Amino acid sequence: MGRIVKKFGGSSVGSTKKILQVAKRILAEKQPEDQIVMVVSAMGDTTDELIALAKELTPAPYQYPREMDMLLSTGEQVSIALLTMAFRTLGHPAISLTGALAGMKTNSVHTKGKILDIEPQRVLEELEKGNIVVVAGFQGADALGDPVTLGRGGSDTSAVALAGALKADSCEIFTDVDGIYSADPRVAPDARRMQEITYDEMLEMARLGAGVMQLRSVEMGKRFHIPIHVRSTFTTQSGTMIREAYTMEEKEFVIRGVAHDDKVAKIAVLGVPNHPGIAHSIFSALAQAHVDVDMIVQSIRNIEKNVTDMVFTIASDDLVVAKPIVDQVANDLNAIAVLIEEDVAKVSIVGAGMLGSPGIASRMFGALAEAGVNIDVISTSEISVSCLIKADKIKTAVNAIHAEFFPSKPAA
Amino acid sequence: MGRIVKKFGGSSVGSTKKILQVAKRILAEKQPEDQIVMVVSAMGDTTDELIALAKELTPAPYQYPREMDMLLSTGEQVSIALLTMAFRTLGHPAISLTGALAGMKTNSVHTKGKILDIEPQRVLEELEKGNIVVVAGFQGADALGDPVTLGRGGSDTSAVALAGALKADSCEIFTDVDGIYSADPRVAPDARRMQEITYDEMLEMARLGAGVMQLRSVEMGKRFHIPIHVRSTFTTQSGTMIREAYTMEEKEFVIRGVAHDDKVAKIAVLGVPNHPGIAHSIFSALAQAHVDVDMIVQSIRNIEKNVTDMVFTIASDDLVVAKPIVDQVANDLNAIAVLIEEDVAKVSIVGAGMLGSPGIASRMFGALAEAGVNIDVISTSEISVSCLIKADKIKTAVNAIHAEFFPSKPAA
Repeated sequence: MGRIVKKFGGSSVGSTKKILQVAKRILAEKQPEDQIVMVVSAMGDTTDELIALAKELTPAPYQYPREMDMLLSTGEQVSIALLTMAFRTLGHPAISLTGALAGMKTNSVHTKGKILDIEPQRVLEELEKGNIVVVAGFQGADALGDPVTLGRGGSDTSAVALAGALKADSCEIFTDVDGIYSADPRVAPDARRMQEITYDEMLEMARLGAGVMQLRSVEMGKRFHIPIHVRSTFTTQSGTMIREAYTMEEKEFVIRGVAHDDKVAKIAVLGVPNHPGIAHSIFSALAQAHVDVDMIVQSIRNIEKNVTDMVFTIASDDLVVAKPIVDQVANDLNAIAVLIEEDVAKVSIVGAGMLGSPGIASRMFGALAEAGVNIDVISTSEISVSCLIKADKIKTAVNAIHAEFFPSKPAA
Repeated sequence: MGRIVKKFGGSSVGSTKKILQVAKRILAEKQPEDQIVMVVSAMGDTTDELIALAKELTPAPYQYPREMDMLLSTGEQVSIALLTMAFRTLGHPAISLTGALAGMKTNSVHTKGKILDIEPQRVLEELEKGNIVVVAGFQGADALGDPVTLGRGGSDTSAVALAGALKADSCEIFTDVDGIYSADPRVAPDARRMQEITYDEMLEMARLGAGVMQLRSVEMGKRFHIPIHVRSTFTTQSGTMIREAYTMEEKEFVIRGVAHDDKVAKIAVLGVPNHPGIAHSIFSALAQAHVDVDMIVQSIRNIEKNVTDMVFTIASDDLVVAKPIVDQVANDLNAIAVLIEEDVAKVSIVGAGMLGSPGIASRMFGALAEAGVNIDVISTSEISVSCLIKADKIKTAVNAIHAEFFPSKPAA
């Protein structure tokens, strides 16, 4: 027997027909003694439709975040009621619980809530009665009992956090891909599905651009030691297990994957007088505006005049906020110029194994050189190496690096 | 200043345009010191659409009443969020509260819940902050916190009960008619709007077929001494005030109104041996099946054989349940025959004043005789007289009686 939390996203429950399919599949896979908790999102386009309704009243409905949560939290409430009815029409006892009823306690930051605590007594009681418990993802309630939604990727986070609070054996995230790949299969056709990946590697992959899992849910899994099984809604085969450490000897490859991110912008502040505190001047101003800075390189421009260049990257979405701030600071610092490049992208390799394997980075650089890809900026972490390159070379780069580290034909 | 609960039904909030109209109207009428609580239903057809979704899963979704409540309670949650946004876009502070957050405590009879208690602290706190408080009608939560809907007419009941708990000055029910009329204006064109009516008269009118207000909400108003103002969504003129006693001297008319009900069926059990307990045999079997029996007449068929006829009426909707029960009991009692008539209707006069005015009933019978309407069965209460007649005579009957008791031209 196992206690398993299973999360299905909005597209998996986009119609009553799909809802019935999900219920049938779960019952077909369920062992008699299994305790199943379902975490589901709002049906298909429901959230967008509700937002459109609110926009008929005001062009900027998110200026009323509490009311948006009151509105949007109905989306999951509809899907949990319908999925529960589906289980019951198929003959299995089931009960629906909103985030609040499932004990998801959040802060009061409406539309971007964080889970503070989970009090899962009701869920446990309903499991003990033999119910499949169907919980609304993406939502909880604050100290007043008001509904609060969790923001982007919130349903995954709900599922993993609930699995932690229930001391579940695992949390299964059903999605439209069948696992975590060694590179984005849309870019690298030879990418192979991994059977396992560690939390740290997955976090690094996600941070570096791999889109399957949200950072927060992986962090939650790591914190509560919940193995996360990322698998397909459409097939019954197993996908990728994200866990603390490998259970299998998978020493074949020293890196776990190639990540890439093309939503990057590069900013260069040129000719800054090199006195203490210049890095602080620039980056504290950006931090105050909630702009995350990624790769940073400081290089000497003119050693006699003690003048330096400061180069860094940010998410391209943040450029509109960052540009006036950087311009102002550059002006204050008497810099020569600010250059911005938007046609850049970042390619990275990730793997805990690289700690014990020297020469990994140089193999990456070699593969890029051989493919004719110029490297602009390099940064490294304990378990990753990243290179900034021209955006139009990203497909070439990902495939060259993937071929270097995953030379055989895909096994999956 | 006044503390006023205002209830708007689903058709009044059927679109964001109508929601905005409601908000504008409320703000235009509001005095600076007024404390306003809005109670609203689900938008237009929302409830029907949600029921249709559930029916895609099962032909009989109400077999899962708890899940239907989980599903249907989202309807009002959407409308309270949108109406609150409308108030805020118009510049007035407002906050939405579900039934649960407004402290509506119900029993656990899902889809037909009853309000057990109201704990209105949150509503009072939000009023003190200067908010218009927008509460979801038709719903509350049971001891577990699970959503429970109140069944037919539930929004009116929510509004009046909440007004009672808040010790409000009045409860305004906005509807598609502009008040309570002396007869149904669709049947009797000379019907006039009443300025006032007592709770007891309104209860009797509702019991006898007048459709504007649900019995439960009037009972609630009577219990908590809350004046209920029934008025039009579409105009700003005042409608009819339902209260304990008249504030004005309205002695002009001895009766308050003519009610009629054409959803009536007559059942006659003929030739029953007249021994003690036969009434009990028939009516206890019907009571067990939740069939309400209205007019009852027992008459001697054959005094020598001591054989009697038992005639009574029920709501025609109950006929499908009642018929096999009556047939069985008639068979057990050795009755001669069971006759059922569906082409019958009931016309009634209501007025507290008739207690002190003899001859009222005979004036009614006279008016019917003059109009050529035959009376089949008569029943009376302290403040009403009802006659069962042929259904095709109902319009003639209502108008004849109305002309007898309200002879002048309508003043409204």
